[in-house]
Amino acid sequence: MTRAYNFCAGPAAIPEPVLQKAKQELLNWGEIGASIMEMSHRSDAFLQIARDAEQSLRDLMRIPDNYKVLFLQGGASTQFAVIPMNLLRGKTRADYVRTGIWSHKAVDQAMPFCQVNVAADTMDKGYNFIPEINSWELDSEAAYFHYTPNETVGGVEFNFIPDTGDVPVVADMSSNILSRPIDVSKFGLIYAGAQKNIGPSGLTIVIVREDLIGNAISYTPTPFDYAVQAKDGSLYNTPPTFAWYLTGLVFKWLKEQGGPEAIAEINERKAKKLYAAIDATDFYYNDVKPDCRSWMNIPFQLKEKNMDQTFISEAAENGLLNLNGFRSVGGLRASIYNAVPEEAVDALVAFMAGFEKKYG
Amino acid sequence: MTRAYNFCAGPAAIPEPVLQKAKQELLNWGEIGASIMEMSHRSDAFLQIARDAEQSLRDLMRIPDNYKVLFLQGGASTQFAVIPMNLLRGKTRADYVRTGIWSHKAVDQAMPFCQVNVAADTMDKGYNFIPEINSWELDSEAAYFHYTPNETVGGVEFNFIPDTGDVPVVADMSSNILSRPIDVSKFGLIYAGAQKNIGPSGLTIVIVREDLIGNAISYTPTPFDYAVQAKDGSLYNTPPTFAWYLTGLVFKWLKEQGGPEAIAEINERKAKKLYAAIDATDFYYNDVKPDCRSWMNIPFQLKEKNMDQTFISEAAENGLLNLNGFRSVGGLRASIYNAVPEEAVDALVAFMAGFEKKYG
Repeated sequence: MTRAYNFCAGPAAIPEPVLQKAKQELLNWGEIGASIMEMSHRSDAFLQIARDAEQSLRDLMRIPDNYKVLFLQGGASTQFAVIPMNLLRGKTRADYVRTGIWSHKAVDQAMPFCQVNVAADTMDKGYNFIPEINSWELDSEAAYFHYTPNETVGGVEFNFIPDTGDVPVVADMSSNILSRPIDVSKFGLIYAGAQKNIGPSGLTIVIVREDLIGNAISYTPTPFDYAVQAKDGSLYNTPPTFAWYLTGLVFKWLKEQGGPEAIAEINERKAKKLYAAIDATDFYYNDVKPDCRSWMNIPFQLKEKNMDQTFISEAAENGLLNLNGFRSVGGLRASIYNAVPEEAVDALVAFMAGFEKKYG
Repeated sequence: MTRAYNFCAGPAAIPEPVLQKAKQELLNWGEIGASIMEMSHRSDAFLQIARDAEQSLRDLMRIPDNYKVLFLQGGASTQFAVIPMNLLRGKTRADYVRTGIWSHKAVDQAMPFCQVNVAADTMDKGYNFIPEINSWELDSEAAYFHYTPNETVGGVEFNFIPDTGDVPVVADMSSNILSRPIDVSKFGLIYAGAQKNIGPSGLTIVIVREDLIGNAISYTPTPFDYAVQAKDGSLYNTPPTFAWYLTGLVFKWLKEQGGPEAIAEINERKAKKLYAAIDATDFYYNDVKPDCRSWMNIPFQLKEKNMDQTFISEAAENGLLNLNGFRSVGGLRASIYNAVPEEAVDALVAFMAGFEKKYG
């Protein structure tokens, strides 16, 4: 088999030209006589890669100068604790909106650190919509407001950036960063595990407004003290250099595609095609409220529940990989991040039609 | 240039056959149609890799069944905080021995969590020897005893495992794990950043006796709660899958070399050759006490201090990379981990003789 179409939710597809480039220079990067993964993180070679990657991300997202960009380890799950450690700044309360499994985890993990106010919650209603912002119970004394703009499991995506006045907005963009243009200046902090829309797992991007850092709680592990890592260019300790390098290649690839503006058009088209295929028949369904359906993660169900494994297996035989739903919810899911080409969605839509014809 | 000899202290050389294998399957692992870095950490493909890597490490180190092996993120620098978070178990004191820059950092990072007793210290004496154990001021009520068996910067290596009675021994083996056989049963916990003697940066191995876990402090970020990760097979959150995969390949390579017993013979021979070259002339020197000279990291100085850059540059031109000393101490250093072949040391020794002839 050559390369298949890969709908994995994460670690997810990487653009093929990026893998080709990495393959080509895997044993000998830039004719230095070694792999880039064998070089010191303080070598000129790696420092150039690191700075280029940061600059590419700044260009792609138009990150204002008063924001620091950090390249850390530990994934979003570590940030769930590290964010309150860094951002409480002597305050005792934080606002969270719970709209899916990932924001739920973020709420739970913040509890040892502060009084968590769940300002809006759809847990008992199936995590399939975003409540109107005028119904939220926001706390003007909160140290920060946290939400998850795109929920990977439920397939629910915010179509607006919440305005919480002077309370800084913190967003877990693991699954939709760089999928469309966003106004970074509306956020206090944006974070993302790399393994969905950026690069390989093991790298976490944090974009943080500089006035919010420098007040970490004393027991914050130093590699997770934003101020320390900002001062040291994310080199306080050895970073995941190969993941950082690959991520830089992905950023370059995205620039070549035209950046978030251009990829957003493709992403919207991909999503619309797939939702249209799901909605066109009773054989498939997706119960997310239409105005907050995700462009990135599209969960869907078969009317005949016990057909899931057949669908997943036959899809794989046809070169369509990883269409299983999240392990705790089951069903099917297609994750169609930036690196998943439109042809992959076309192939999936065609397969779905054939599958319905065969079993419907 | 083809592949050079790479003496980098870390991220360090990877065995060339490992990189060749990774290159070959970078875009399509096991004919699944995707790179292994594009597959879910819960996929059958990755789970097999993960389990094989753990088993290989268990075989190589003869890890007893009552020890858990964890594959984490964050490096040893994160463990400096995470170890007290997990191992204090209601106690308030811990013993540390300070024999170099890395154990110094470990001491500093433990201070927010407990009363740190520095039981032995060579900081004011130049970090170039290991004090006799009968001079140490050990605390029988310490929650654990921490030391750094090999100091990467100073090039000081313990030639014994401290016996601290009922107090569990914790060792930062980042720079000498798998370099020779060790008796794991003498330790409570062994940890190592992968980027020196194991694989690429971004992965951290923790080997911990299971009776010591399950009492993490409430504010421990969950991905760093040993009990949680032990229960979840280090899959509580998304691990650095590609680094884990490469590490498994390195373990297989080390098995093919004959394991720690066989590699220890080579490592000892490599180190002896290089120390002999340094000691044979006044042009070069190393001031570490002979009975605790490291097999892995060999710092050395030139009598003519202002020749360091010339040495480093001319060595690089001759295909001998990364011979600079640690940034805060300067001088020269050759790190000769498992993946650095004996021919590299032979080439370095020959270059040193030529350099002395030219400039001595």
